Amino acid sequence: MSDKAIHAFFYPDSVAVIGASSTPGKIGHEILKSVSQYEYRGRVYAVNPKASEILGLKSYESIESIPDRIDLAVLAIPATAVPEAIEKCASKGAKAAVIVSGGFKELGGQSEEIEKKIVLTARAHGVRIIGPNCIGIFNSANRLDTFFQSRERMRRPERGPVAFMTQSGTFGCTILEWAADSNLGISKFISYGNRCDVDEADLIDYLAQDDDTKVIGVYVEGFGDGRKFMEAVKRVAAKKAVVVLKAGRSEKGSKVALSHTGWLAGSYQVCESALKQCDALVVNDIEELFDVAKALAKQPVATGRRIAMATNGIGPCVMAADRCVELGLDLPRLEERTLLRLKKELPSYCIVSNPVDLTGSGTSRDYMNALTALAEDKSVDLLMPFFVFQDTPLGEEILDLLPSLKKYGKPILCCASGGEFTRKCSDRLERSEIPVYPTPERVVAAAKALVSRNEFLKKSIQN
Amino acid sequence: MSDKAIHAFFYPDSVAVIGASSTPGKIGHEILKSVSQYEYRGRVYAVNPKASEILGLKSYESIESIPDRIDLAVLAIPATAVPEAIEKCASKGAKAAVIVSGGFKELGGQSEEIEKKIVLTARAHGVRIIGPNCIGIFNSANRLDTFFQSRERMRRPERGPVAFMTQSGTFGCTILEWAADSNLGISKFISYGNRCDVDEADLIDYLAQDDDTKVIGVYVEGFGDGRKFMEAVKRVAAKKAVVVLKAGRSEKGSKVALSHTGWLAGSYQVCESALKQCDALVVNDIEELFDVAKALAKQPVATGRRIAMATNGIGPCVMAADRCVELGLDLPRLEERTLLRLKKELPSYCIVSNPVDLTGSGTSRDYMNALTALAEDKSVDLLMPFFVFQDTPLGEEILDLLPSLKKYGKPILCCASGGEFTRKCSDRLERSEIPVYPTPERVVAAAKALVSRNEFLKKSIQN
Repeated sequence: MSDKAIHAFFYPDSVAVIGASSTPGKIGHEILKSVSQYEYRGRVYAVNPKASEILGLKSYESIESIPDRIDLAVLAIPATAVPEAIEKCASKGAKAAVIVSGGFKELGGQSEEIEKKIVLTARAHGVRIIGPNCIGIFNSANRLDTFFQSRERMRRPERGPVAFMTQSGTFGCTILEWAADSNLGISKFISYGNRCDVDEADLIDYLAQDDDTKVIGVYVEGFGDGRKFMEAVKRVAAKKAVVVLKAGRSEKGSKVALSHTGWLAGSYQVCESALKQCDALVVNDIEELFDVAKALAKQPVATGRRIAMATNGIGPCVMAADRCVELGLDLPRLEERTLLRLKKELPSYCIVSNPVDLTGSGTSRDYMNALTALAEDKSVDLLMPFFVFQDTPLGEEILDLLPSLKKYGKPILCCASGGEFTRKCSDRLERSEIPVYPTPERVVAAAKALVSRNEFLKKSIQN
Repeated sequence: MSDKAIHAFFYPDSVAVIGASSTPGKIGHEILKSVSQYEYRGRVYAVNPKASEILGLKSYESIESIPDRIDLAVLAIPATAVPEAIEKCASKGAKAAVIVSGGFKELGGQSEEIEKKIVLTARAHGVRIIGPNCIGIFNSANRLDTFFQSRERMRRPERGPVAFMTQSGTFGCTILEWAADSNLGISKFISYGNRCDVDEADLIDYLAQDDDTKVIGVYVEGFGDGRKFMEAVKRVAAKKAVVVLKAGRSEKGSKVALSHTGWLAGSYQVCESALKQCDALVVNDIEELFDVAKALAKQPVATGRRIAMATNGIGPCVMAADRCVELGLDLPRLEERTLLRLKKELPSYCIVSNPVDLTGSGTSRDYMNALTALAEDKSVDLLMPFFVFQDTPLGEEILDLLPSLKKYGKPILCCASGGEFTRKCSDRLERSEIPVYPTPERVVAAAKALVSRNEFLKKSIQN
């Protein structure tokens, strides 16, 4: 499919909300609000035969009565009314339609037939469809979104390098807000629900050409055309990392997926191994999907498997070391000269080893001494500072100093957890593009992804 | 050991901070601040020969010059000075000492010898010791804490049913703040670091008698006397749940543990199976330790393995169903009359099954209809509502209505994730003692603990 077809979803000059409602809280009201009341600057039309004005916009009795071309139609009307609405939108020039409404394939029987009819209608009229049964799209470049989640309830993230597509709108909301909370920029977002037309492969091919997108995250339950997806991933993988969370590992989970989007999840094992063969990074849960995308977006890849840790509270490093071993990462012995240097530069109560334990008395200066030595150590590929920001001897200067270590070109991934003060410190680091993870397991999983990505890139250059 | 010995740590009438510093940010300053500047009402004495006054308190030149009995001594002085200080504290009546300072067994060699000397001194003078190399204790009943983490940087939780003991002060900080953030009350907290004297078993025996404590959480790297610990757990298990996170699964992790607290972690497999035999609930990471303690503290046990879900966004339920299968939990078919009732009471676009999918249009009323029917269904042992609070059709009334379902006596565990608004909603539920978890994996692990705890209790009644 041509890029232009998908482009129409993200860069419309005019948007019509079919089924706009004047009742706050209703889906058709909230979508119209999201599209028309914030930063998006295109022309917006509301269609609702029972209202004359909604949210300060004239409400049109019908699609035909809109005195303009429609570029993108967003539909929040009963399933049975959708086929005709698609036809009418096409007659107004629409090439792209987001169907938010549910009540189709996921219900089976007659409702599934309606979905088939929509696809036939859309194909006949040259309209592409995202959905149905989804929350639609978000483009951070023009701030267009079709969400019925109000701004008061759901933050939208800033512009940035991660594209995210998801069969589950709920996980979509989660990722968008986690991204907003940890300063991870999003380029494009697509919730595609039942996926009756535009599929993951179409979106990946589009995002492959999208200069805003560097990393692509995918949550999928059941593939429509698995082979097409794998081929699309294979095409893009050398250029952009694709991280995939595949749900439905169990028969039970697969059955729930069927009632969600009408798609059976298929055999997880078969799917996982196919995904790995097509060079996707396969993750195990929604946190890991987010964490890995964040690491790939903010940090360079790790040129080897050797991790060095420094900390002012070594407990979590025990769990991290366990996890490193389980994931095949090394915690190497440091170079002799690094050890000598650290023994000279650090207070005598520090434990000079890997991890370097600065103890609860550790200061910003101790951290910088330790991390600089680790960055200059040739036996280290990735820096992993653990922080107990609660420990009062550690001044806040470290938050300004740490980013200077980026000049060494080695990835830096941090671990810190706690309450409000810790979140504030983490937030400052993340604004400097240094990711912070709340548990040892999560930071190590992110490190593993930076290692795996490098190993794939090396292999693909050799081939 | 007698309860009275441990009691002395938590309920002193007078506390001396040995090594109080006048420099803000220094450990000895922050400890004095924590003990003397907030709610704790005992008499507090600062010892520092170089200062005359610190934080508005007279600073004593020596321990001997304190004109009062000392009940609890908190030491933040160089390791070599500790043995003599312990002797002097004993001469002032101290039966309990928290040694915050590090630089002992974890360094090996001569430093390890000093630790041995401390133990001999303490035994000779009838002083019990917590630490060294720790952040000490917190008693929510009198708000005494010995932390060098300032209030500005680390919130202290409210009073409540969970006691927590940890070899890692860092994980201690994490748990305390997570507890404060999610309205989980803590009874007693103990960070014991190198554990030269008072050990986990002593603490468990004490907490067994502590009316404030209902659940005991433990993070441990290496046991000193594993058998003693297991026996203590066995004694208390029928009365109070003990949840254990054991670090050091790998040789590498065990080596890091050695440099942390001077204790090798030992074989994880042997330890895990011993822990399970003594009826501890064994968890895999710090989040699970917290999550399981929260569930046990706030909810009744589940009388069976049958979970029912209801949701306004079913994606995460696919992952949850997968996880249920992996953990041996059931997602049963609902009773026929429940299905009929739900079909009657819910809008036609809802999917009546398990999970009950209320779709993105789901309202508070839909949730209450669904959850009431599930609560009254005899094939259901535990209610697991998933919420997309971002979905605007869902009004906030559900936050006030949900607690009424507690009358059915079935545990209720929720899942919801997102940003600020979601956290606010979750917070309101948690204030009603209904736990909320941010991912499907975490809520299912918590459910599993409520099932396991019930199975243990049934078994222990039969025996």
